[in-house]
Amino acid sequence: MNKERISKVLNNGNGMDALLLSDPYAINYLLGKMISPGERFLGLLLQKEKEPILFLNSLFPFEKMEGLTVVNYSDSDDLVEVLRPYFNPEWIMGVDKILPARFLLPIIKNNLVKNCVVGSIAVDKARAVKDEKEKELMRKASKINDEAMAIFKTLVKDGISEKEVATQIPDIYKKLGADNFSFDMIVAFGKNAADPHHMPDDTVVKEGDAVLFDVGCIYKGYCSDMTRTFFYKKGPDEAQKNIYDLVRRANEEAEKIIRPGVRLCDIDKTARDIITEGGYGPYFTHRLGHFIGTEVHEYGDVSSSFKDLTQEGNTFSIEPGIYYPEILGCRIEDLVLVTPDGVEVLNNYPKDIEVIGL
Amino acid sequence: MNKERISKVLNNGNGMDALLLSDPYAINYLLGKMISPGERFLGLLLQKEKEPILFLNSLFPFEKMEGLTVVNYSDSDDLVEVLRPYFNPEWIMGVDKILPARFLLPIIKNNLVKNCVVGSIAVDKARAVKDEKEKELMRKASKINDEAMAIFKTLVKDGISEKEVATQIPDIYKKLGADNFSFDMIVAFGKNAADPHHMPDDTVVKEGDAVLFDVGCIYKGYCSDMTRTFFYKKGPDEAQKNIYDLVRRANEEAEKIIRPGVRLCDIDKTARDIITEGGYGPYFTHRLGHFIGTEVHEYGDVSSSFKDLTQEGNTFSIEPGIYYPEILGCRIEDLVLVTPDGVEVLNNYPKDIEVIGL
Repeated sequence: MNKERISKVLNNGNGMDALLLSDPYAINYLLGKMISPGERFLGLLLQKEKEPILFLNSLFPFEKMEGLTVVNYSDSDDLVEVLRPYFNPEWIMGVDKILPARFLLPIIKNNLVKNCVVGSIAVDKARAVKDEKEKELMRKASKINDEAMAIFKTLVKDGISEKEVATQIPDIYKKLGADNFSFDMIVAFGKNAADPHHMPDDTVVKEGDAVLFDVGCIYKGYCSDMTRTFFYKKGPDEAQKNIYDLVRRANEEAEKIIRPGVRLCDIDKTARDIITEGGYGPYFTHRLGHFIGTEVHEYGDVSSSFKDLTQEGNTFSIEPGIYYPEILGCRIEDLVLVTPDGVEVLNNYPKDIEVIGL
Repeated sequence: MNKERISKVLNNGNGMDALLLSDPYAINYLLGKMISPGERFLGLLLQKEKEPILFLNSLFPFEKMEGLTVVNYSDSDDLVEVLRPYFNPEWIMGVDKILPARFLLPIIKNNLVKNCVVGSIAVDKARAVKDEKEKELMRKASKINDEAMAIFKTLVKDGISEKEVATQIPDIYKKLGADNFSFDMIVAFGKNAADPHHMPDDTVVKEGDAVLFDVGCIYKGYCSDMTRTFFYKKGPDEAQKNIYDLVRRANEEAEKIIRPGVRLCDIDKTARDIITEGGYGPYFTHRLGHFIGTEVHEYGDVSSSFKDLTQEGNTFSIEPGIYYPEILGCRIEDLVLVTPDGVEVLNNYPKDIEVIGL
């Protein structure tokens, strides 16, 4: 159990008498123990100056933890009655943003507390600032991703499909020391690269195709996430080169302005302005980036609507893209870490135009 | 869009003026289209005698569908204002059991409807009864699982760890025609087989070990799930054989009583009584089974507290186990399909005691 993190979370939770977390990642962040309860209820109840209480189905083995009260229940128990003795009808309680309706509605209807508000931002904001140990793991996960990218590109050969490439990725990560991949990898050839959510299918690579890899691994619980766009057997024509250079410039210029105290929306704007001035604004259809850590998408956006300031220890992606099916779909993504006086780009795989399959 | 399924769901939704589904599997069941919205809101609003309405972030491409209204919104929109014109403050609205607090609380606090109740049981009950096409896919997924089990057991060799076996499983499924595995496979050697939730680790197999595989694949969206327990290089001793035979008998006798109209708790009882009479009741620590279809765990339990009657077209698991670390951890699991006059056991991999690694 990490008491420092717990008090950081409680300090973030102003106006709440208690906080009920249910996200296994949030609970793991505070207890150092990942519990995957499936469809069963899992809750960590936090209150100032009281011992945290973990509500856990007795099916899941759990070793005693100093300073933590564990309340076990079984499948035949009525959850409301399990919770009632520990709740207070006078409370304003923060609940986890992901707490499902099947648990939340009974809490509300049985008046276990006076009022529920979405409160998990208290833990989300703590998680957004990585400590030294977390930074090291983020660096290592991205280092593996750099090494992996150098291998992935060699998998693309005449006759091979996106799916056949994607299938080989998990093993390569494991051989490089990662525990797993961190999200369903995108391998996209040709026009498919112009769909930012494309899933690998039976499309076979052909000369002149863009080859986009959006991939990441998990190292000791921490995620990497990087995108590179290659060209198969033939370099880009002028129009393609123009798009590629715009995306690269958007990526690099956005990274350059990062230091503590910058509005995240301004980082988005830096990249977006470059692409817009280049004439492709409407084809950059998503936010510039997302926060990342033990989950690939954590609380925190690099987008026009997210006006929070960067803090030392933030880790997020910078991933501009242009999706123009008739010319090119292209995205270039790094993870970055905000340092005391600037930025550390966690990915070092080159961004020069690279022709593969030769 | 499957209009028949939609009206089945609406007929199940008595007492609700509208039903808001958010589970991608439920939506896929009704629309025939899987949308994975990540952290973004996805909702399908159903009302009697009105066109269904799909609320979808415009990031996700969606082809026009006859008879369906699609309401697109973007990341910068206020979700409450997106939904308000389509909701009615007089409604009692059923919401999805998994609708997260971050969407549910704003709906409640802004009085978009009069009252929210958990309503997804209307679709869960429809999904629990498979139609002919679904039955065929369930059969095929389990047939592949039978074939795969015959291969998995040959992977276990001197010096190999659980993890090294587990890593090979996805590829084998793919070679046999499956799309993917359906859940994180359990490969457990020796004492690890006595932990029903064991995850493959670096444990290396040794002579005399139990070797438990709890594995399943996905075929065209439908899941299989089977468990067999083998013995490595040496047959079971008397005490082990006794446990194995009890588990096998519990599995087979429970399967024998299945036909339409049986209480699911009575199927659980049949298996549990056999294990209890054999003296191992406290070591059978979980329900006998769970419903299954496009998800590995669907609504519907084979447990002492689930008193619903079986219906023709139900598919669920029968998976008794005894977890006694000092002697043996053993589970034997099949999927079954309730037929008009009995049961079809979807798994045909033998249940005889089998010594592997010879």
